[in-house]
Amino acid sequence: MPAVRVAMAQINPTVGDLAGNSAKIIDFAVRAKAEGANLVLFPELALSGYPIEDLALSKDFLRSSHDALAKLALDLATAGCGEITVVVGYPGFAKKPTSWAIGQNKAAVIRSGTLQSEYAKHHLPNYSVFDEYRVFVPGQDLLTFEIENTKFGVVICEDIWQNGGPVADIAKSGVDLTLVLNGSPFEVTKTDSRLALVQALAKDQSTAVAYVNLVGGQDDLVFDGNSFAVDLTGKEVVRAKQFAEDLVLFDLKTKKELSATSESASQLPEVEQVWNALVLGLGDYVRKNGFKTVVLGLSGGIDSAVCASLAVDALSAKNVFGVGMPSKYSSEHSLTDARELAKNTGLNYSEEPIENVVQAMMTQLPLDGLAAENLQARVRALILMGLSNQDGHLVLTTGNKTELAVGYSTIYGDSVGGFAPIKDVEKGLVWELARYRNSLAKSSGQTPPIPESSITKPPSAELRPGQLDQDSLPDYEVLDRVLELHIEQKLSASEIVAQGFDSGLVESVLKLVRSSEWKRRQGAIGPRITKLAFGRERRMPITNTSN
Amino acid sequence: MPAVRVAMAQINPTVGDLAGNSAKIIDFAVRAKAEGANLVLFPELALSGYPIEDLALSKDFLRSSHDALAKLALDLATAGCGEITVVVGYPGFAKKPTSWAIGQNKAAVIRSGTLQSEYAKHHLPNYSVFDEYRVFVPGQDLLTFEIENTKFGVVICEDIWQNGGPVADIAKSGVDLTLVLNGSPFEVTKTDSRLALVQALAKDQSTAVAYVNLVGGQDDLVFDGNSFAVDLTGKEVVRAKQFAEDLVLFDLKTKKELSATSESASQLPEVEQVWNALVLGLGDYVRKNGFKTVVLGLSGGIDSAVCASLAVDALSAKNVFGVGMPSKYSSEHSLTDARELAKNTGLNYSEEPIENVVQAMMTQLPLDGLAAENLQARVRALILMGLSNQDGHLVLTTGNKTELAVGYSTIYGDSVGGFAPIKDVEKGLVWELARYRNSLAKSSGQTPPIPESSITKPPSAELRPGQLDQDSLPDYEVLDRVLELHIEQKLSASEIVAQGFDSGLVESVLKLVRSSEWKRRQGAIGPRITKLAFGRERRMPITNTSN
Repeated sequence: MPAVRVAMAQINPTVGDLAGNSAKIIDFAVRAKAEGANLVLFPELALSGYPIEDLALSKDFLRSSHDALAKLALDLATAGCGEITVVVGYPGFAKKPTSWAIGQNKAAVIRSGTLQSEYAKHHLPNYSVFDEYRVFVPGQDLLTFEIENTKFGVVICEDIWQNGGPVADIAKSGVDLTLVLNGSPFEVTKTDSRLALVQALAKDQSTAVAYVNLVGGQDDLVFDGNSFAVDLTGKEVVRAKQFAEDLVLFDLKTKKELSATSESASQLPEVEQVWNALVLGLGDYVRKNGFKTVVLGLSGGIDSAVCASLAVDALSAKNVFGVGMPSKYSSEHSLTDARELAKNTGLNYSEEPIENVVQAMMTQLPLDGLAAENLQARVRALILMGLSNQDGHLVLTTGNKTELAVGYSTIYGDSVGGFAPIKDVEKGLVWELARYRNSLAKSSGQTPPIPESSITKPPSAELRPGQLDQDSLPDYEVLDRVLELHIEQKLSASEIVAQGFDSGLVESVLKLVRSSEWKRRQGAIGPRITKLAFGRERRMPITNTSN
Repeated sequence: MPAVRVAMAQINPTVGDLAGNSAKIIDFAVRAKAEGANLVLFPELALSGYPIEDLALSKDFLRSSHDALAKLALDLATAGCGEITVVVGYPGFAKKPTSWAIGQNKAAVIRSGTLQSEYAKHHLPNYSVFDEYRVFVPGQDLLTFEIENTKFGVVICEDIWQNGGPVADIAKSGVDLTLVLNGSPFEVTKTDSRLALVQALAKDQSTAVAYVNLVGGQDDLVFDGNSFAVDLTGKEVVRAKQFAEDLVLFDLKTKKELSATSESASQLPEVEQVWNALVLGLGDYVRKNGFKTVVLGLSGGIDSAVCASLAVDALSAKNVFGVGMPSKYSSEHSLTDARELAKNTGLNYSEEPIENVVQAMMTQLPLDGLAAENLQARVRALILMGLSNQDGHLVLTTGNKTELAVGYSTIYGDSVGGFAPIKDVEKGLVWELARYRNSLAKSSGQTPPIPESSITKPPSAELRPGQLDQDSLPDYEVLDRVLELHIEQKLSASEIVAQGFDSGLVESVLKLVRSSEWKRRQGAIGPRITKLAFGRERRMPITNTSN
């Protein structure tokens, strides 16, 4: 039996851009064909982008998707790919709608200019960030097809994560290679769990598996690619890059005999994965929403320094505008650190002192205490939004996950912005990322972007004389651990105290988390990197007197 | 056979307040007993408040709920209600959790100080504003019980809205009265559809039905109460008040023979329903979140005038603080109308001109065009947030649904606030509400709150000389219709054009809707009154290039 050559096309589509995504699919199919592929596998909903959320409830959008798919089939043939099989995800109408959903999350098998057959996802995730039971109708049927006496089965993402999925059924019919179309968002440590799951599946069901994932940022999600294939013993045969588009191929002779015909990517260390995820999430948000430039406040602190460096990596220095906005409470090193960051990275830097505007406000409406502190942050927001409106920059807001959790920010002040690059990064990891990025620069002979002083000095909002974060908050090391146990591990106060934390401290932290729900609800989106990010994944009532 | 006296206790619980809600349940049970009730029926999740969203994923919260229920049973007996049957909704653990949910939406039957039996909701709504399949495990079992040879069945809300619900099964066993526990949010015109549904159910299944609903505001939802009972012919026997707590009773001799023993409320005209829904939603948000006072900007325009009047009705004039914030572009009547509103209603009024602060900013960072216009709105936000931080007021933001839909607002400017009283009210309805409220005042011999000039003058943001809303937007009458067809009826551009609207206008309006998604995402919550409000009910990607 001759080998069948399978290509896995790990692409970065844009939600809603049916024409642009089709062009990309054709481009990858043409490249795959040039490398001798018989079959090219694309990720989940590659034609529409993913997730499409309530777009799936739009008849109009589903009609456009069907039209785009028919055109894609013809265009593939015109581009010389009519004789290869293309498997691609797209949203289409369900034959039997429910009373709330009309569409299905489908995989199309295309050949010779037409749709040959299709599959609809059985298991619709409706937890974490996913709302698929809200917007799709579950599929019921199985799909297998043959090329050159090799039998393929098709399933989609969640189908392999739930017990009783369709893989067992298609395996019974003797499938050689199970094609899995995925839209699996990045989470630190998730790479390993995907591989373990697929290996178990391959062994249990006696099938080789090709797992192809989306890559790219979509609002708060970052798809990391990282596609791979295993043989029926679970041995990894080939792996695509993480955080970049890629096309990898392998030959399948029997389900035991798979051999890569392209180079495999190697796994990155965890902190590097996070850095790359954040760069991709930020860059894609900017590009896919039609922005060219970003603006952010540079306080000389670690959060804004890391955000600026991420932006420079994502968009290049010439598209990043940093603004130093000193007040009378700003320390000397605030400005020197901000200037050094600008110099190190080459970003566009300007300074706009806030004192005169603050004074004008204090004359109009005298404020003190917290109200006066917040005023300073809000005058900075006036400046950033003025620059944004004037010059078309997207404003980045630099708050980290720890601050967001406890509400340690000024709403309509430093929280202002369209995108929050480190909103899912706890404070400790912000420092770690800074050190990583600097050491990467050093190891390649470049200037480390982040001033050493921004990393080593004690964090301060500098909204009153001598203020330090730790005047209001527990040590970040303790705070991050308590928050991780509560938010990500979902432990209660008593369960956290049982792990050895002070009960007064735990109660006060959890109270801060509850009472800042309304602020988070009005916050900018930003890339998710943990297994529980604030946003659509944690839907807590604002009005909530539970403790 | 003696009649069984059934009480429907339409209460307003607070999400999370297990102790407070328990006290309220006991209070109503005691009152029901005093009126001779054998059975008291409370609404869906009355013990925890509703909806509890991701609180249902918290083991800790479910444990507290079970503890509170056990205590409630004992306390009911102590309060002398041990011999009557109390049916109350509460969240509890599922025997068989799914891989994502651990709890169930339950109804407990309590008597003699203990939990006698319970039912778990079968049909979990996961569309519109509901995410119940995300947070609950579906129930499978049926529940009936008897009192004095009368047979009762128990179901919960969505169970009667989906085909194939459990009512048919319990009806087969000869139920006399079906008890339906509901958490059904207000929508204009929904009253009629609830009654029609329950009437059909009564006739089809040959059962009398007691439909008890929650009342009160919870974040963006307003539960309107409006509980009622029908006999097996569908005839309405008794109806509770809309938008207020109530206890109504009826005697059931056979399922054909029901007779009210308390007075029935009459149905309100639609615009009055909306006004009351908004007053209740605003008032409950303020009270349940521990605020005492609100502050809002008074521009002399219709939106802020209606918001201020709602706040005065909800909280009384002494708790409402209005601020006139004139700029050099403000017309003479801006201030006179704002002052007249303050005088008419008796709210606390002050003036803070923005010119000096705007000038200080323009000196620091010269802006023009839209950037300069937005600056004015943002300086007003500085003032309102300053007052909020200084004096503890909740800030109300006064944008209406039409503005929100097309992004006709300044983010971090007039959009600033913790609650948006008219965010689901289209512009035309804002005027209608103003006229309604004034005529209500006239008919009861009081001063109409809203200045006639605020109603009749052409709307303007007054951010540049001579500016009118209609310079940038289509006539509101047309705009409201196009938006209603697109947002609530979910029609596409071509379908709207087919109804006779100009295609250029429709395209430009729909484009505005798409491009302001990011602004809406950062907006305050506010009470939902239509069948599709912006917020959790319309989950569109921000990054979305579809058209």
